[in-house]
Amino acid sequence: MWSNSIGKAFVVTCFGESHGPVVGVTVDGCPAGLSLTVDDIQGALDLRIPQEKEVVSGRREPDAVELFSGVFQDYTTGAPVTLHIRNKDVKSSDYEPMKDVVRPGHADYPAKVKYGGFSDYRGGGRLSGRMTAAFVAAGAIAQKLLSSFGVEVLAYTQAIDGVQLENHPSSEAVKKVTYENSMRCPDPAIAEKMRQAVINAKADGDSVGGVVECTALNLPVGVGEPLFDAIDSELAKILFGIPAVKGVEFGAGFQATRHHRQLLRSKRP
Amino acid sequence: MWSNSIGKAFVVTCFGESHGPVVGVTVDGCPAGLSLTVDDIQGALDLRIPQEKEVVSGRREPDAVELFSGVFQDYTTGAPVTLHIRNKDVKSSDYEPMKDVVRPGHADYPAKVKYGGFSDYRGGGRLSGRMTAAFVAAGAIAQKLLSSFGVEVLAYTQAIDGVQLENHPSSEAVKKVTYENSMRCPDPAIAEKMRQAVINAKADGDSVGGVVECTALNLPVGVGEPLFDAIDSELAKILFGIPAVKGVEFGAGFQATRHHRQLLRSKRP
Amino acid sequence: MWSNSIGKAFVVTCFGESHGPVVGVTVDGCPAGLSLTVDDIQGALDLRIPQEKEVVSGRREPDAVELFSGVFQDYTTGAPVTLHIRNKDVKSSDYEPMKDVVRPGHADYPAKVKYGGFSDYRGGGRLSGRMTAAFVAAGAIAQKLLSSFGVEVLAYTQAIDGVQLENHPSSEAVKKVTYENSMRCPDPAIAEKMRQAVINAKADGDSVGGVVECTALNLPVGVGEPLFDAIDSELAKILFGIPAVKGVEFGAGFQATRHHRQLLRSKRP
Amino acid sequence: MWSNSIGKAFVVTCFGESHGPVVGVTVDGCPAGLSLTVDDIQGALDLRIPQEKEVVSGRREPDAVELFSGVFQDYTTGAPVTLHIRNKDVKSSDYEPMKDVVRPGHADYPAKVKYGGFSDYRGGGRLSGRMTAAFVAAGAIAQKLLSSFGVEVLAYTQAIDGVQLENHPSSEAVKKVTYENSMRCPDPAIAEKMRQAVINAKADGDSVGGVVECTALNLPVGVGEPLFDAIDSELAKILFGIPAVKGVEFGAGFQATRHHRQLLRSKRP
Repeated sequence: MWSNSIGKAFVVTCFGESHGPVVGVTVDGCPAGLSLTVDDIQGALDLRIPQEKEVVSGRREPDAVELFSGVFQDYTTGAPVTLHIRNKDVKSSDYEPMKDVVRPGHADYPAKVKYGGFSDYRGGGRLSGRMTAAFVAAGAIAQKLLSSFGVEVLAYTQAIDGVQLENHPSSEAVKKVTYENSMRCPDPAIAEKMRQAVINAKADGDSVGGVVECTALNLPVGVGEPLFDAIDSELAKILFGIPAVKGVEFGAGFQATRHHRQLLRSKRP
Repeated sequence: MWSNSIGKAFVVTCFGESHGPVVGVTVDGCPAGLSLTVDDIQGALDLRIPQEKEVVSGRREPDAVELFSGVFQDYTTGAPVTLHIRNKDVKSSDYEPMKDVVRPGHADYPAKVKYGGFSDYRGGGRLSGRMTAAFVAAGAIAQKLLSSFGVEVLAYTQAIDGVQLENHPSSEAVKKVTYENSMRCPDPAIAEKMRQAVINAKADGDSVGGVVECTALNLPVGVGEPLFDAIDSELAKILFGIPAVKGVEFGAGFQATRHHRQLLRSKRP
Repeated sequence: MWSNSIGKAFVVTCFGESHGPVVGVTVDGCPAGLSLTVDDIQGALDLRIPQEKEVVSGRREPDAVELFSGVFQDYTTGAPVTLHIRNKDVKSSDYEPMKDVVRPGHADYPAKVKYGGFSDYRGGGRLSGRMTAAFVAAGAIAQKLLSSFGVEVLAYTQAIDGVQLENHPSSEAVKKVTYENSMRCPDPAIAEKMRQAVINAKADGDSVGGVVECTALNLPVGVGEPLFDAIDSELAKILFGIPAVKGVEFGAGFQATRHHRQLLRSKRP
Repeated sequence: MWSNSIGKAFVVTCFGESHGPVVGVTVDGCPAGLSLTVDDIQGALDLRIPQEKEVVSGRREPDAVELFSGVFQDYTTGAPVTLHIRNKDVKSSDYEPMKDVVRPGHADYPAKVKYGGFSDYRGGGRLSGRMTAAFVAAGAIAQKLLSSFGVEVLAYTQAIDGVQLENHPSSEAVKKVTYENSMRCPDPAIAEKMRQAVINAKADGDSVGGVVECTALNLPVGVGEPLFDAIDSELAKILFGIPAVKGVEFGAGFQATRHHRQLLRSKRP
């Protein structure tokens, strides 16, 4: 059954594999007349993985975008926009030893069972975190469209391995500082602590979890459609499409379940 | 745009309003040959709201199910199953004073803006928590279908207002104890503490948050479809369709972001 | 799989059976603020089957509409509109003899095979032509919505059993005459010939085919979405949802395959 | 709104433009384990346009297929299959003179209005008949899948400009003769008459219409889903996605409206 598309008005269809020729995406429903170039998308992809090699996994690719349809003379035409991000050349033979290994924390085992041994096992194949490159590319188009309506979407790292921002940063700080460090954290001192946590974990052959906080500014009242396409429902669906995401909260979130009344009371003057 | 349906294979379409004549649901895609009667659905609805009047909101209705299609001689036919839950008779005039009041913590304001003043404002109208009666009815059908494959779905209250189960209860405890108290908590002592928290909040004219933990037993490997219809994506989408839900976690959830490595290490023998 | 819904912006979900309690429909996506009453829909249903008993099949029911959701104080609210048309009371026992009979020209046989003997066999069950009552009801809502944009949709009988209108009737004739006779033909003399063809066939225990011609006036340029939701694609899909429809043409249709060039040439002055 | 995808279980998403870099297609839902190579698809594309240059329009391209995802070691993996057909290199400047010309019998005018002047006007852009190359490619995959279930789909030219086969050809004749002539007609003598009609029309700067008849062999009983995804509904929707298609019939089609009773009677012994 079809499951590689998401959305109804702005529909993102994703394809490709970690070690196949490309990761790609088609966006159907982007209105005609939006200014869009390869550079708009490339700029977003360049921010996906920090440059600092100490804090990222081994694989870092240039992720060059190639645009195939839906844009004419630097404007969208109303036709579907398809783009590819070419994978680095890989030799299939290098991955033969992985063929029968199912890694913990990955989808290798269910993929093997579900697809009867026919799934592409190289680096997780279709179920690799590398698919998020396609999400970033589609997101870059969405962001251009949203910004034409005045909507701004901000995101930053709120916590890594328990090291967290104590206060809500200002939108100005988020815009200015986030991409100045490889942790994408708007407080440089906290960012440095986070960085150490990552480096320590990496030295142990381990990884750490974190929290990304996201804010949309200037959203009009009434975005989202009841009952099932409310904005929180739609965002949660796509966020859990990122394999590493294990929880999603809106507003007070789980905090509302923990003596919230006392908390509220304690904040009264 | 269409947004009152969810799912692709087993599709739930919900309709009705809090103070209109009915809340109803159509399930399209339920296979033919499933044993199904009004009693199967009525039984689930009877558990939706505890009988104990001290811990629930004022409105308690009998929620009698009426079945209109898709079932013939006590088996599903393969045609869509439509059912209604009739609302108590209400006089529209009683709600005139509410017409221009937008309640905090409800969707009254966005509804007013989004629908240009034409939305049914009585008790939240379409955006009332009462819509969950339709979810329960559809869920009862889903549960019968799943149980024909050996899948069991359990749920219980894990926390209310910070009062929480310290250990993971056994499936046996969940099955046996959960519905013996109005908190739906498998530990009677904790349930009583939760109950006091609810009663205290109610006395203050307030309400409290809580956590529901849910487990599916005997799920086959590979349920869900990548990339966007993974089982966590699908569940999150529908869970956030319940207005009061503000967070969803799977597995370790947000715990994985808080010194998870130390936690794991401390559990080693 | 879900297949009882059609459309993306104005979505029609149909349910019910020929001899179950109701035939019904939910329309999701009708905008808020459209003036709509039961009478608007009842008026369209009253025209579905001619009053003249000589030319119709045995079953004629009053088809009273009941409205359950999505309309408040005579205007749509933006929530899904659900309505029922109650079937005449029928005794299931009357249909026992039909249980193992599969009628030619009906879907009885594939239904029996597809649904493993669980389908409702009474009068065709879910696959009865009676489902068109739901289409008419949904169409009445669509018509009100379209007419609010100035779009008018006209239809009339162009041919029955080879008796056909020779010339294209004017829109005025269609509007004025069509519903004055039971053939729904804008030329009274041709209508009478059609009527005789129907009565003759009926006397032989037979039925006849016909052609309905439909025109939409004042459609804006660019309605429909390429590639697959073009207006002809969408209309064809729903038209073939009527079991008796065996062909659909647009514009010149099949005529364009028959020496069209000579035909065009012969019309030149 | 999204409209470049069709289907629910085997979903075809089409992208590209007539004079952009590629025409392409993504097939989502093709099961894992189907033997599939570029040659399977290339073979179908090679038959799309006859080699005989006298009977086709000016543009004839090699249509080489490039496969990007969903196939690993010559078998489908269960992931979406994406392929491109590269367009011949074209200079955008060659099409500047066409920018403000709207051709009759094409979608140039509605495209201009609908997309506010931003659509790709070169050779019809997104609305060109060249998109059928993508349909053929997707169809080649579908055909391989269907043939693994024993289903065979045959098609041939039944009529061109009124020159038509008088009798229904045998499946054997269709399989053997159809692709031996550029008319794709299983009767060589009729094919030659059709060919002359095409050549005559072309000499006049004109074109002609025709009828393609299609048969599916070995379809299981009960394929298609009521009410709206019946097999005739689904086929009609996609067939009208081909811009030149103006009519679709099943079974007796429009013939059933023309003194069908007499016709049937005359065939009795």
